[in-house]
Amino acid sequence: MDKLTHFDKNGNAVMVDVSEKKENERIATACSTISLSKETLDCIKNGEVGKGDVLGVARVAGIMAAKKTSDLIPMCHPLMITKCNIDYEIDEVESKIKILATVKLVGKTGVEMEALTAATITALTIYDMCKAMDKRMVIENTFLLKKTGGKSGEFNF
Amino acid sequence: MDKLTHFDKNGNAVMVDVSEKKENERIATACSTISLSKETLDCIKNGEVGKGDVLGVARVAGIMAAKKTSDLIPMCHPLMITKCNIDYEIDEVESKIKILATVKLVGKTGVEMEALTAATITALTIYDMCKAMDKRMVIENTFLLKKTGGKSGEFNF
Amino acid sequence: MDKLTHFDKNGNAVMVDVSEKKENERIATACSTISLSKETLDCIKNGEVGKGDVLGVARVAGIMAAKKTSDLIPMCHPLMITKCNIDYEIDEVESKIKILATVKLVGKTGVEMEALTAATITALTIYDMCKAMDKRMVIENTFLLKKTGGKSGEFNF
Amino acid sequence: MDKLTHFDKNGNAVMVDVSEKKENERIATACSTISLSKETLDCIKNGEVGKGDVLGVARVAGIMAAKKTSDLIPMCHPLMITKCNIDYEIDEVESKIKILATVKLVGKTGVEMEALTAATITALTIYDMCKAMDKRMVIENTFLLKKTGGKSGEFNF
Amino acid sequence: MDKLTHFDKNGNAVMVDVSEKKENERIATACSTISLSKETLDCIKNGEVGKGDVLGVARVAGIMAAKKTSDLIPMCHPLMITKCNIDYEIDEVESKIKILATVKLVGKTGVEMEALTAATITALTIYDMCKAMDKRMVIENTFLLKKTGGKSGEFNF
Amino acid sequence: MDKLTHFDKNGNAVMVDVSEKKENERIATACSTISLSKETLDCIKNGEVGKGDVLGVARVAGIMAAKKTSDLIPMCHPLMITKCNIDYEIDEVESKIKILATVKLVGKTGVEMEALTAATITALTIYDMCKAMDKRMVIENTFLLKKTGGKSGEFNF
Repeated sequence: MDKLTHFDKNGNAVMVDVSEKKENERIATACSTISLSKETLDCIKNGEVGKGDVLGVARVAGIMAAKKTSDLIPMCHPLMITKCNIDYEIDEVESKIKILATVKLVGKTGVEMEALTAATITALTIYDMCKAMDKRMVIENTFLLKKTGGKSGEFNF
Repeated sequence: MDKLTHFDKNGNAVMVDVSEKKENERIATACSTISLSKETLDCIKNGEVGKGDVLGVARVAGIMAAKKTSDLIPMCHPLMITKCNIDYEIDEVESKIKILATVKLVGKTGVEMEALTAATITALTIYDMCKAMDKRMVIENTFLLKKTGGKSGEFNF
Repeated sequence: MDKLTHFDKNGNAVMVDVSEKKENERIATACSTISLSKETLDCIKNGEVGKGDVLGVARVAGIMAAKKTSDLIPMCHPLMITKCNIDYEIDEVESKIKILATVKLVGKTGVEMEALTAATITALTIYDMCKAMDKRMVIENTFLLKKTGGKSGEFNF
Repeated sequence: MDKLTHFDKNGNAVMVDVSEKKENERIATACSTISLSKETLDCIKNGEVGKGDVLGVARVAGIMAAKKTSDLIPMCHPLMITKCNIDYEIDEVESKIKILATVKLVGKTGVEMEALTAATITALTIYDMCKAMDKRMVIENTFLLKKTGGKSGEFNF
Repeated sequence: MDKLTHFDKNGNAVMVDVSEKKENERIATACSTISLSKETLDCIKNGEVGKGDVLGVARVAGIMAAKKTSDLIPMCHPLMITKCNIDYEIDEVESKIKILATVKLVGKTGVEMEALTAATITALTIYDMCKAMDKRMVIENTFLLKKTGGKSGEFNF
Repeated sequence: MDKLTHFDKNGNAVMVDVSEKKENERIATACSTISLSKETLDCIKNGEVGKGDVLGVARVAGIMAAKKTSDLIPMCHPLMITKCNIDYEIDEVESKIKILATVKLVGKTGVEMEALTAATITALTIYDMCKAMDKRMVIENTFLLKKTGGKSGEFNF
């Protein structure tokens, strides 16, 4: 139970004390993948070239969501992130879009949750914009891909 | 391209007009699954019985997130949801927690995105509260399980 | 336990289902009182007549807070309140300011929490604006004064 | 003084009572214009065709801002808008971009402020994305262009 | 009037300038007490041991509210709090629950308002979750119990 | 295209990296002007002296909006502003109110958008509170008046 740091010794949820932690540059990249029908993927791709920019709207949503992380995840500290970007990799064979969200900070605690929140809300926004034509999309495998900075060192999934 | 209803005829993103739609009772259930180590799952289960209630905190986060959906997903309409609940199914063999988020509304448009957002933020909160002991958790297969109400009729995944 | 309606039969927190409830006009008035030094009360009163309008700023904060209630109180339904006003009664003998917050709605559920939130944030804003000169202010006795509409009928404290 | 309806008879700010008002379809269109250097306008236009979509990002910001109006403007009622769209008219001769924001609602009160907020935040987002190359942009003449629905009838500027 | 630091020399409300203040570790503890019927207190206590965790939900609400303080209290600076915890003391004889909210920061200004907001929203959440069985609960005596850090030194109520 | 720094080399919108930037004191002043009928201006002026304080409510709205900037403008960094004030200049001959919003920060990036957002929301709030008597108000010429701090040096419009 000691390992669940978001609880005090009585088991009560707590926003953990990071006052003494050093201000370091910290970077986290999270990954999420949305699986959709070929027809939907084609619509998205066509939209990108010219008009109907699903991925552009979803990118804006993801970046804005990174800034809302501490408002969404109860025990997250408010943080002043210094960078956020969202990249896509389209896999036409598997009919999937991979979302990579990277968040950077100079601060006392990591930005894993900010990256995960950005990736997730990006995926949900794609879902929202395509759901009229395809309700069977699945958001697959959201996870922390990479993390640097902080005392626990570098992490790679 | 006509099928991406969140764009107008020029391809510009738009919050679609639901003024003429009828007020119906609409229910949506979304599902998300988080896969974690057996050690982490044990900590969560022990915490539930007594103290350190990861799933309780995550449930609150999920319900609150359902209410923020239109603030997170750019083209979602603001809605006055009339019910939200989060249920869990723990699979000890596979070491997974399945999250079921149900949202209900009497209104002009569906609550799929509210249910999906609730399920997702519940999963992310579990991740946050356990990440000090386990960074390799994966949020798997988030999708719309069921939907009733509205002119497109009942949907089951 | 049946009486704690914000929990389901398994004891899990839930936003209760109000889908079937009728749309009625509902009004709630909440009361809060802040006790402060005579010197502080004098400053506030002088500020009102001319400049330094502590009570005016606090009123704006209270009205805005009423609209944020469902974002603050986890199991509150989002509501479209149709009126909110904040009144003050200054008691110079006891050196107190009584805050009366009234909220009105045509909807499916009551606005007690909206009125209580408005009264409380009004009081906290007065505290904030005066705390440089008086840290011993006390916010006393915040409660629901009156409520009409809804199936439980009229309530008076 | 009677005409400032956002104040009660004692002059205190109040969210006015709209409980008795009828639910009508209401539409408002607001207009804002941003004046910028020809070089900046060229960058924006080039970005639209292909990449660097300033106007697309600003459109998303404007639509999301329409939903935040009651959180920004103290005496605005929370409303469930049913449509929002943002259109642009580019004037290359004058080197200006005109923003037209239209908001629709079936409800008890008008959506002028929602349309004005959407137009304004769209303009500010254009400013933000171009300010590294041009700090002398000016947001000119933001106003209510048109309004229908509600007892005061149709309004045209 | 000089003592109301949230106003400039013309009496206009202002967010005071803290640019020159030093970054110190600052801690504040606020206290609020909710008085309720014995029957309600019993329900809460029974819920804690097993299911129906009123105090757990209220704790999450309080911690999340601490992070929203600058969004609620108009002249509060946005702050990156580094810790927040909520403790309860149950007084069965008097049938009251005392709430103690502690907030910590390394920054330029104090966290009194964050602690007071956390305590208050915790109390309001308890009220919300029990109001179906008891509308006569009273939130008594919310005040700043203790404060350390900052140039005004330690404060104890 | 290189000059639009809010896009990466592929033209995708990005929150630019400010991690390496120095923490400086930065100040920005933005200006907005609202033009209204003489009758409306008279009401506002009369309200100020005694009751019905339109400009007081609008000032609170502007200061609160400065704190919401990163929530409104997609690519803005979250910032901990250290000061905000709103001043008015009333021009009775032209029947206009000029709004001057000043924001200060010790941080890595400028506060132009915070000042512009504060000025704009102040103007919109004046519009909202007077629109029952005057729908032909126009918000004219919102722009960055002055900026100091940061590597681009001092800017004056």
